Amino acid sequence: MSNKEETNEEIHEEHEEHMEAIDDSGVSETEAEMTELEKAQAELSEMEDKFLRARAEIANMSNRFKNERELLIRYRSQDLGKKILPSLDNLERAMAIEVDDEQGTSLKKGISMVLESLQAALKDEGIEEIPTMGEVFDPNLHQAVQTIPASDETPADTIVEVLQKGYKLHDRVLRASMVIVAQ
Amino acid sequence: MSNKEETNEEIHEEHEEHMEAIDDSGVSETEAEMTELEKAQAELSEMEDKFLRARAEIANMSNRFKNERELLIRYRSQDLGKKILPSLDNLERAMAIEVDDEQGTSLKKGISMVLESLQAALKDEGIEEIPTMGEVFDPNLHQAVQTIPASDETPADTIVEVLQKGYKLHDRVLRASMVIVAQ
Repeated sequence: MSNKEETNEEIHEEHEEHMEAIDDSGVSETEAEMTELEKAQAELSEMEDKFLRARAEIANMSNRFKNERELLIRYRSQDLGKKILPSLDNLERAMAIEVDDEQGTSLKKGISMVLESLQAALKDEGIEEIPTMGEVFDPNLHQAVQTIPASDETPADTIVEVLQKGYKLHDRVLRASMVIVAQ
Repeated sequence: MSNKEETNEEIHEEHEEHMEAIDDSGVSETEAEMTELEKAQAELSEMEDKFLRARAEIANMSNRFKNERELLIRYRSQDLGKKILPSLDNLERAMAIEVDDEQGTSLKKGISMVLESLQAALKDEGIEEIPTMGEVFDPNLHQAVQTIPASDETPADTIVEVLQKGYKLHDRVLRASMVIVAQ
């Protein structure tokens, strides 16, 4: 009983005087009512907690979706871009063929246009060649397929030749550069 | 007072007998308590409503984002794909050039490889040529840049020539086919 009263006092201090004046029947009634009230208040508190957690979940979901959406858009051209890289290689190989007649010149002009157009399209989407020549070897960007002994002109970890160009999409490597590195 | 009692009875029928027995002080206390209880219950009801609405919002957001994610993935190659189309045109034009020497043959072989490789990459992403020859003219897929009079062999709305190939990404037109149509 005293515990009960203390709890009530804590919850409704403004009713303290009344509580002390009521008779047995009244006390019993008040006790039952306080139990109902306490129950409702506990339920309210629980529901409030559930609501706050749901609201936090909405905020989390919204942030998560925003981030995911940004990533999907930022890297949307990853797959198609990657599949286009061998075409760039082939076009560049074709550009290296020497021609001496009108047809050959015309063909190479066409190939050059296509190459530039593809490079521009890839660049628009954030796909660019990984810098290599003169760069320090970086295993995150470059793949060493061969090494030569380091010298005064080519100190250790210098890239000395590029066997296949590498490309990245923003910060992601689509294909590492295949290089020869001094060691 | 009677209204109050009726409300109380509705809410807590099990306490009916006690309520009739309590004295003035007790009644006044009960009145105040019921107000508290009613207030708590109203707040609980409101909070429950807010929680249910938040939960519905979570379900909606989840569905909305699922759909958005699917669309972003399905049409991710739209922009890069569109920008690659002029390269296909140029490669096809180059393939039409006649060659009679080794260099020219070698160049055309390279061009043919690139063309096939690009077409395969685009097809992988859902980008394909819009069917034209023998098809009925469809203003959603084809752009009529010229017309010829319809005849027995080429009835009205028949596509008789394709000036520039059109492409679609799944159900979306990336570029309409430019055609000559019988009218």
